[in-house]
Amino acid sequence: MYSEIPSAQLLVLSFKAKGIKNIVISPGSRNAPLTLGFSKNPFFKCFSIVDERCAAFFALGMARQLQEPVAVVCTSGSALLNYYPAVAEAFYSEIPLIVVSADRPPYKIDVGDGQTIQQSHAFGKHIGYEANLKLDVSHSTETIKEFDESLLSHSQQEIEVYNKKEIISALQLVSSENLPVHINIPFEEPLYGQTEEPEIKVTGDIRTEDSNPANYDLEEYSNIWSTSPRKMVLIGVQQPDVLSKSVLDKLALDSTTLVFTETTSNIHDSRFFASIDSIIAPIEKSAARDELFEALRPDVLITLGGLIVSKKIKAFLRKYKPKHHWHVGKNKAYDTFFCLSSHVRTEPNTFLNNLPHWEQKEGFRLRWDEVKNHYQNRREAYLEKIGFSDFWAFNEIQGSIPDSYQVHLANSSTVRYSQLFPMNETLSVFCNRGTSGIDGSTSTAVGASIYYPEPTVLITGDLSFFYDSNGLWFDNLRSDFRIILINNGGGGIFRILPGSEQTDEFSSYFETVHSLNANNLAMMYGLDYANVSNKQDLKNELESFYISSDTPKILEVFTPRLQNDKILLDYFDFIS
Amino acid sequence: MYSEIPSAQLLVLSFKAKGIKNIVISPGSRNAPLTLGFSKNPFFKCFSIVDERCAAFFALGMARQLQEPVAVVCTSGSALLNYYPAVAEAFYSEIPLIVVSADRPPYKIDVGDGQTIQQSHAFGKHIGYEANLKLDVSHSTETIKEFDESLLSHSQQEIEVYNKKEIISALQLVSSENLPVHINIPFEEPLYGQTEEPEIKVTGDIRTEDSNPANYDLEEYSNIWSTSPRKMVLIGVQQPDVLSKSVLDKLALDSTTLVFTETTSNIHDSRFFASIDSIIAPIEKSAARDELFEALRPDVLITLGGLIVSKKIKAFLRKYKPKHHWHVGKNKAYDTFFCLSSHVRTEPNTFLNNLPHWEQKEGFRLRWDEVKNHYQNRREAYLEKIGFSDFWAFNEIQGSIPDSYQVHLANSSTVRYSQLFPMNETLSVFCNRGTSGIDGSTSTAVGASIYYPEPTVLITGDLSFFYDSNGLWFDNLRSDFRIILINNGGGGIFRILPGSEQTDEFSSYFETVHSLNANNLAMMYGLDYANVSNKQDLKNELESFYISSDTPKILEVFTPRLQNDKILLDYFDFIS
Repeated sequence: MYSEIPSAQLLVLSFKAKGIKNIVISPGSRNAPLTLGFSKNPFFKCFSIVDERCAAFFALGMARQLQEPVAVVCTSGSALLNYYPAVAEAFYSEIPLIVVSADRPPYKIDVGDGQTIQQSHAFGKHIGYEANLKLDVSHSTETIKEFDESLLSHSQQEIEVYNKKEIISALQLVSSENLPVHINIPFEEPLYGQTEEPEIKVTGDIRTEDSNPANYDLEEYSNIWSTSPRKMVLIGVQQPDVLSKSVLDKLALDSTTLVFTETTSNIHDSRFFASIDSIIAPIEKSAARDELFEALRPDVLITLGGLIVSKKIKAFLRKYKPKHHWHVGKNKAYDTFFCLSSHVRTEPNTFLNNLPHWEQKEGFRLRWDEVKNHYQNRREAYLEKIGFSDFWAFNEIQGSIPDSYQVHLANSSTVRYSQLFPMNETLSVFCNRGTSGIDGSTSTAVGASIYYPEPTVLITGDLSFFYDSNGLWFDNLRSDFRIILINNGGGGIFRILPGSEQTDEFSSYFETVHSLNANNLAMMYGLDYANVSNKQDLKNELESFYISSDTPKILEVFTPRLQNDKILLDYFDFIS
Repeated sequence: MYSEIPSAQLLVLSFKAKGIKNIVISPGSRNAPLTLGFSKNPFFKCFSIVDERCAAFFALGMARQLQEPVAVVCTSGSALLNYYPAVAEAFYSEIPLIVVSADRPPYKIDVGDGQTIQQSHAFGKHIGYEANLKLDVSHSTETIKEFDESLLSHSQQEIEVYNKKEIISALQLVSSENLPVHINIPFEEPLYGQTEEPEIKVTGDIRTEDSNPANYDLEEYSNIWSTSPRKMVLIGVQQPDVLSKSVLDKLALDSTTLVFTETTSNIHDSRFFASIDSIIAPIEKSAARDELFEALRPDVLITLGGLIVSKKIKAFLRKYKPKHHWHVGKNKAYDTFFCLSSHVRTEPNTFLNNLPHWEQKEGFRLRWDEVKNHYQNRREAYLEKIGFSDFWAFNEIQGSIPDSYQVHLANSSTVRYSQLFPMNETLSVFCNRGTSGIDGSTSTAVGASIYYPEPTVLITGDLSFFYDSNGLWFDNLRSDFRIILINNGGGGIFRILPGSEQTDEFSSYFETVHSLNANNLAMMYGLDYANVSNKQDLKNELESFYISSDTPKILEVFTPRLQNDKILLDYFDFIS
């Protein structure tokens, strides 16, 4: 079995032809075409190691001992950077290490996608050869056409000739010179073998406005704003208290405007739409999908703050593009939806206050308020109905956090679940969304806690937590530091993605099933520890969990691995 | 208190002037001028975190929470690369993280020094600004003159103007743009404040010979070899069985030739000199130092294999240079002693066999054989005399390893101690000397064990072990895998280096004192665990330690932190 993507097949077959059989895989989704190819082919001996830093040293040890090339394979983003210490070691010790990184297609780099960095030249001078493969144009042709038609100037045949030459050069050098080599492969979705309809148009030039409104035509923005019946404001990662009360009130009063907030925006206002996926998922499932999405499509989209978590809003806005997308703020403006028309570098309160006064008129939002009320009611009913699970536990945990805490969310499942439930508006919420890595959430939370005037709680999944267990190796953890670890025995998010399977390869190389718990780490680093695995125990523990104590605490919540994904997916059916 | 090095003072004072007060320090020696400046100045709040990956995420968390720049400070080599995941996160999340890396002087990069990589441009496109400071020429002027006189073409005043401009540019950008910045500072020794006599001359061009002896003048090499009364062969990192029995015998029979082998050379032959430092340390202490070193100085030096561990042989050969230094082998030839005259790219057995037949004549070596016999006898006497310590334990452990095992040595103290004691010649020995990092020794050993026909034992210090604790996160550890952890409660090597102090700053930021043990990690990952802290218990445990078992094992050896350094330093006095 091979992935249907030509360059993935080419790589796997080239490794086989060259007799490279030991493959150390770290879990991920972007690298799925490679993981499938290697793990389902009995020629290869695959190893699963979560922490890429360890994975690369592991492969280095094996390559040195065998005196033959060993490969490491990872997903896109900061995963690759964790290989660097071992790559430098291999470079100076002359060890044949092959680094294979899956990458996003070029047009999705530096537009604000998650787990995306500049992967080419990652290892600077410490690499023997770097093969940067080209994206297959025969796979997802229509998608490619919509995003970057210029890629089609090369035929699939030309691309295969080029990729073949590059892979061969890398594999020749790793054997002849005993230096590490890096092969970077961009993959477009679908990654697990499905096909997908092409949807998006390429946009024109992006205008950049000065920070001073006196230097650009505010009138033009005002006119567009006041004459557009359907407006949307989407707020990503942001510090607390960035937007003024008066701006928030204006936005709330204007029913021609929908405000979508992510958990990491630190805006928790019941007049806005905090659970984006609870709006969009039911539409995705609806027979009237296209009509409903058209009804949700804004004329004007304003984005504020940093990167966006919700994949569903990205997919929606990439297909149902607004006429105007303005990013307002001094931070970088990513063309996340491929329709950015203007970057207004003005401070958001100034710009929003300068827009025409909004009237309290009936409009666009009323329909969606009804949808919100509906899913909120249904969510309550669903919570009554379901058993103990990630879904149930996240709701309970999120509701338990005392006023004014700083909340750190780990990446992947944690930050995504957190968006489904209400968040106390006095909390400050953070998540590393720059590269969306699972590699440093604990360390980040510990660092952020040191000077914070109130206590900090970290909510994390099991893979993130064990990956960064060294984050607890710090003598002066604050006694009011709290960790809630939702341990579902592996990377639960992979069970939700399309392509999930009940096979051994899947549970080893995607889900990365394990049976670790945090008890020993808590003892090692002197934290108080408790664990729960049912509703009543979780409720009981949370009652005393935040009470001040002499030592920091970990509460480990064991949830049923094989039921979590079903409960989450059923939720979207239930609210549809 | 400040370091006496101008650029270290400049950096510390610039941070103070800009109000950057939170400094996260990872232990190291090259960064000592900065650690001293920050930790001894009450303006700064310093934090000590061993794992640079965690340290950078910790700083990122703090910087995001405070909304102000926080700095991380590390030593040279792969330490810096562990910052990369957090640097990429900071880049995409726009967080003001200041990375400060200490570096070697430019002339010591890529000549085979330990913990040395190409540090400039380490973070590729994921950095807002990179300040590559220039080496101060007023500090260690004489050393600089000997190594690279061209650096003196700029005056100290010009260098200070340049460095000041670069630091200011970096600090302005980190605040204005909220992007991470990198400041790289080369330091020449002395790092702790002492001064040192300049010693070495710059060498001429390096000749490179083809791999085929037919293509170069073998006669010339043979003539030099046969007419030189004092020859030295120095063998670094090498796979087992690289040199043929006949070549080893020829070398052993020729008493005009000294063969110095490092543990990692995998040559364990009692006719050679395996404990380089036991020869050189007593000379360093002798009143007749110069005369003795002149007597040891070879006319011809041949190096084989990879990088060299012993700092003492590097210092000796850099000062007392051979007339000819030939590096023989297909691997890279580093100009480690600044006198490389020729890189002969021929396979070593071929080259050495083609040299004139060596006669069994009396010569150079006889004097040094006496020295060897002397220190070997004294070592035995010393071992009888001393108490339980790193020194005593290493000897006992090294003697305990069963035939044919693969031995992995962690970096820093472990590999250095291992050179002081005899090694069973059936063992295969490995250590990551490419960048000499402490970051992946456990992972490397686990990887190397998978296919090895015999069992593997890892000997490691405590900092290396806890740093790479995730290396044990692997489901299929072999049941015959063994770890011997020498836990002396911190980075014992720092107590031995010049500049060691009995102060709190020293124990926090250099030695990194801790009270961790491996018991909990052993439970977490299902390894058998035992610990010892005296001679008899160590002997008893080692008797059964290697017997086959159902699970892998860790033996933790607690040694007395405050006595180890004294016992090691006294040893060199004792054998003098």
